[in-house]
Amino acid sequence: MIRAGIFGATGYTGFELVQILNRHPSVTIAFATSESYAGQTLDMIFPTAPAIELVRSEDAPLDSADTVFLCLPHAAAAATAVRALNAGLRVIDLSADFRLKDVETYNAWYGVAHPAPKLLNEAVYGLTEIARDQLPTARLVACPGCYPTSVLLAVKPILEAGLATGTIIADSKSGVSGAGRAPKQHTHFVEASNNFSPYNIGRKHRHLPEIEQVMHWFDPDAPDLIFSPHLLPVPRGILSTVYIPVGAVDEATLRDLYTPYDTEPFIHVLPAGQLATLAHVVHTNHCVMALTKVNGMLIVTSAIDNLLKGAAGQAVQNMNVMFGLDETTELL
Amino acid sequence: MIRAGIFGATGYTGFELVQILNRHPSVTIAFATSESYAGQTLDMIFPTAPAIELVRSEDAPLDSADTVFLCLPHAAAAATAVRALNAGLRVIDLSADFRLKDVETYNAWYGVAHPAPKLLNEAVYGLTEIARDQLPTARLVACPGCYPTSVLLAVKPILEAGLATGTIIADSKSGVSGAGRAPKQHTHFVEASNNFSPYNIGRKHRHLPEIEQVMHWFDPDAPDLIFSPHLLPVPRGILSTVYIPVGAVDEATLRDLYTPYDTEPFIHVLPAGQLATLAHVVHTNHCVMALTKVNGMLIVTSAIDNLLKGAAGQAVQNMNVMFGLDETTELL
Amino acid sequence: MIRAGIFGATGYTGFELVQILNRHPSVTIAFATSESYAGQTLDMIFPTAPAIELVRSEDAPLDSADTVFLCLPHAAAAATAVRALNAGLRVIDLSADFRLKDVETYNAWYGVAHPAPKLLNEAVYGLTEIARDQLPTARLVACPGCYPTSVLLAVKPILEAGLATGTIIADSKSGVSGAGRAPKQHTHFVEASNNFSPYNIGRKHRHLPEIEQVMHWFDPDAPDLIFSPHLLPVPRGILSTVYIPVGAVDEATLRDLYTPYDTEPFIHVLPAGQLATLAHVVHTNHCVMALTKVNGMLIVTSAIDNLLKGAAGQAVQNMNVMFGLDETTELL
Amino acid sequence: MIRAGIFGATGYTGFELVQILNRHPSVTIAFATSESYAGQTLDMIFPTAPAIELVRSEDAPLDSADTVFLCLPHAAAAATAVRALNAGLRVIDLSADFRLKDVETYNAWYGVAHPAPKLLNEAVYGLTEIARDQLPTARLVACPGCYPTSVLLAVKPILEAGLATGTIIADSKSGVSGAGRAPKQHTHFVEASNNFSPYNIGRKHRHLPEIEQVMHWFDPDAPDLIFSPHLLPVPRGILSTVYIPVGAVDEATLRDLYTPYDTEPFIHVLPAGQLATLAHVVHTNHCVMALTKVNGMLIVTSAIDNLLKGAAGQAVQNMNVMFGLDETTELL
Repeated sequence: MIRAGIFGATGYTGFELVQILNRHPSVTIAFATSESYAGQTLDMIFPTAPAIELVRSEDAPLDSADTVFLCLPHAAAAATAVRALNAGLRVIDLSADFRLKDVETYNAWYGVAHPAPKLLNEAVYGLTEIARDQLPTARLVACPGCYPTSVLLAVKPILEAGLATGTIIADSKSGVSGAGRAPKQHTHFVEASNNFSPYNIGRKHRHLPEIEQVMHWFDPDAPDLIFSPHLLPVPRGILSTVYIPVGAVDEATLRDLYTPYDTEPFIHVLPAGQLATLAHVVHTNHCVMALTKVNGMLIVTSAIDNLLKGAAGQAVQNMNVMFGLDETTELL
Repeated sequence: MIRAGIFGATGYTGFELVQILNRHPSVTIAFATSESYAGQTLDMIFPTAPAIELVRSEDAPLDSADTVFLCLPHAAAAATAVRALNAGLRVIDLSADFRLKDVETYNAWYGVAHPAPKLLNEAVYGLTEIARDQLPTARLVACPGCYPTSVLLAVKPILEAGLATGTIIADSKSGVSGAGRAPKQHTHFVEASNNFSPYNIGRKHRHLPEIEQVMHWFDPDAPDLIFSPHLLPVPRGILSTVYIPVGAVDEATLRDLYTPYDTEPFIHVLPAGQLATLAHVVHTNHCVMALTKVNGMLIVTSAIDNLLKGAAGQAVQNMNVMFGLDETTELL
Repeated sequence: MIRAGIFGATGYTGFELVQILNRHPSVTIAFATSESYAGQTLDMIFPTAPAIELVRSEDAPLDSADTVFLCLPHAAAAATAVRALNAGLRVIDLSADFRLKDVETYNAWYGVAHPAPKLLNEAVYGLTEIARDQLPTARLVACPGCYPTSVLLAVKPILEAGLATGTIIADSKSGVSGAGRAPKQHTHFVEASNNFSPYNIGRKHRHLPEIEQVMHWFDPDAPDLIFSPHLLPVPRGILSTVYIPVGAVDEATLRDLYTPYDTEPFIHVLPAGQLATLAHVVHTNHCVMALTKVNGMLIVTSAIDNLLKGAAGQAVQNMNVMFGLDETTELL
Repeated sequence: MIRAGIFGATGYTGFELVQILNRHPSVTIAFATSESYAGQTLDMIFPTAPAIELVRSEDAPLDSADTVFLCLPHAAAAATAVRALNAGLRVIDLSADFRLKDVETYNAWYGVAHPAPKLLNEAVYGLTEIARDQLPTARLVACPGCYPTSVLLAVKPILEAGLATGTIIADSKSGVSGAGRAPKQHTHFVEASNNFSPYNIGRKHRHLPEIEQVMHWFDPDAPDLIFSPHLLPVPRGILSTVYIPVGAVDEATLRDLYTPYDTEPFIHVLPAGQLATLAHVVHTNHCVMALTKVNGMLIVTSAIDNLLKGAAGQAVQNMNVMFGLDETTELL
């Protein structure tokens, strides 16, 4: 049995993770932390949850675990990762702390000095579909952001084929859980319901450098990205409508580039004429995508559940590969 | 023209009020206050709103107004009311401060010593349909709570006829704007959407003593009330399902008691076989109700918009009567 | 392995059932029927669903199955049950056809002559918590309605103790999936969102005779029920606020009557001061309830997911017991 | 007083229109038609609506009206327009029938032979902001589609300046009322809530030729449009995120092109750094837009209420101009 500790178990991502790991046949939950609810058990907060004791982060018994999941704010995650690695644990980080390879980029976009820059190189960027070879030996895995997961899976085949001929636009729409559990004005039910609002569009959102970094892994000559996130009045799910200039290449040729996804357990490319929707994916670890070619542009609609394939689900997918389990365990 | 000042113009109720008064043909807005947004104009916060300057409450130019509306927290409202009355203004209070006649009851339920107990007797309880005679000469009007409005209009005819034979149950459901604009955990979109939750049920909600006080005006021998509020995943609207034990009296006789409402501009009693819904009333100042008699029980379903007939709309309805205007001005 | 056939696999209940059974370690899906989608596979309709072939009901290969689940309209279900029983299968019916023991009551409320009245006596009423002894040998199980499940679990301890002293009121609120998948005017998104509407209140809903039948099993002198269903703007979940007159008995004594539920895997009685909410139960097979005593009345708030504990989940719970499996298999 | 007849008064657009016209100080409603509800009055269907009698379309007393509004399906609208014009009335059509100037384009996209092609030339395309000079003398006005209104107002200044250098992308998101009131599978509450779905993306939606036609009026060399509509889980509102390639022109220069909108009563261009949202515009006749320049691309976010500025509101705005009234009457 894998003994797993969870840091930050009472946020939206952490709570999803607890539920998956609690049912996982090869995992026991070693501990779960929560600053706000320390001293209580999880079922006191949510009656149908398991009766797991919640401890303060500083009291987490690291020696009782083989691996830890970090559902913590950036900077706090890196500090905890160092502590866990020093204790000999394998770390699966769901924060932004180890996604970017370039420390200056991190410092500029996150407004803090990175607490552990020496680890950036070692960290494996855990988009499972591209990280499978590195995960079995990884000590530190940086799970991708939710928006990046939806966009990167959409553009990967085209970029790897070197077919993108100009600026790519990702017009993305996310459910409100992406904004976290701490209440804010714009996540108030009265403000978010019946509403739809763009934010940080253009090149202002912190997921932009993360997406462009990986785009360059796919294609060193990858074009720039314009990234337009919007807030949807739904609790969960992301749908990205991605516009990739590809010139005269025909749709059949482009579609062929996506056939490697046929063997992926969590990626579904829809037949021509169908489009991806949030309903296809919420409460699952799947990514559903669809392809439409028109006027020199490939439009990829790509949908995931931001809390699962975009966070807790992909983290467990990574853990499964790291520990030699069937990658789909407890995720189908 | 009536010169009206609005205290607390950027909460949900205050903002509704601004919009109604801004269109009202007999009103000019003298000033509007907001602690959070003082120094800005309303259209800077909400682009299609009028460009009204927002000032701090303490800077409100009372001498520029004939009347003030108070959309303030309890206790703060009473203090402001005193200030305005002393300046010779007429006060329309939307808080709970002047609804209860008994100061001990107020102190016990609201957990503070009432700031101006001597005014309690003078204050007119502004359920417009029962206050019309007093409003033209009133200096101080206490607009009813949202739940009380929906329940009291439902039970009034039966209580006045002395026909209620036992404990009345009001099972009420309110939209999230009733919880105010300040963000809280339970008003977070992710917590409130797809959810439905009872709170303070039984005899614990602050609107209970207010409702029972007026029930006793209708019938000195009125029975007790069991009041069960629930939070609905909608931004606005209240529907109360009220169970009144009435014994063997038949439905036609009971229905006759509601015929005085036929001349009310804002009350609609539906024909037999129909039921009230939120959709009938949201974004209107109407109260729609329906009657069903079964097994010795009259069930009244009663719907209002909590921000209009339950707050800002009824406040303007009261103002219209206070100042000798057509009661329905700008409300139909 | 249990070979299970599903009649009506593309409605909301049938689709939930397919998903549970597809993951169930002791079940293989023998066939699935759909009149509208026959000839297609389920993943053609919903891309992340299993690729199960859909056949017309009349083409269902009964001899390939050990048991069948019926997610069919009433009357159609009974006819199919007869066919399956004659083929030697065990039948788990999710329709209303075998819930009522009295054929006249059925005929009156459902407006058709019952197609198989001789089976009514044999059918086991599958509220699992009261049916466990009968299920292992049952040939025909009638799964309870969604509203009845939420109400009956709430009133059972009080009725069995003979403590209900007068008419019980169940003010129930259900998500829109309870109205079925066929589009109707009142289930249109624009009509149902931002709305809340009572329907068939009093003693008019078809679930009333079902609930009262079982109330009389609990207590031959059970009082009448007033039942007020309302449509909530959520896709799934039922919360019933149940008012049971109990006189002077104190809350501690009443609460003791619910302690047998402590050993139930799917029933959670909350500590004093907490209340049940939809969020506690949606996407689970749990029933969460809470007790509040006030003014001679016990108020039980009782929440379930209408598609799981109120339908597909309870059906599988019944199957687990019928076939000697752990009752909670694939349901926790 | 203008005597106005309304064809199709019980759909979403028609009902909005009735409510505006009923309050309009210079209008009396001459008649209202509804095939489904003929013989009833509007308040029998919706209790707080005015008690207007509903007649069948063929029974509409044309001689009692000065103008008619057509909220009818395409083709049916054109036939009714002919009838009304022959009776000497002025026609304000909210259908698609007179928006396109080219009859072949109409026939191809709408799949029917146009019933009155000779009128196409005469019809004034009623985007009020560009039609003001023609409206006072117009006999026949074709109100624009909802999506076109949101997109055309966004691109007009750039196209008129001849600055668009390549394919424009309009990624548009609409509330469910845009799909009409007749219930369909995809407008079922359970399918549409918690969901978000693209449809007819690329160059497949019927509003594409309408938008491109007007784009060419703005700029004979206008580029092509890629148009991606999506269904939002809200009842009303459209937000279009429009990507216009403009090369190196700086944001200040581009912003200057939008200053003519400063005098428009219903168009609000937000200051730099702000973005348009649905909440800004729902239940109003306003269009709120915002400009963001990045990487050679101007991103315009443009929001309207699809039932108001996108339909009934703009129709009344046109009527106000046609009849010499203040353009904003009953619309602010």
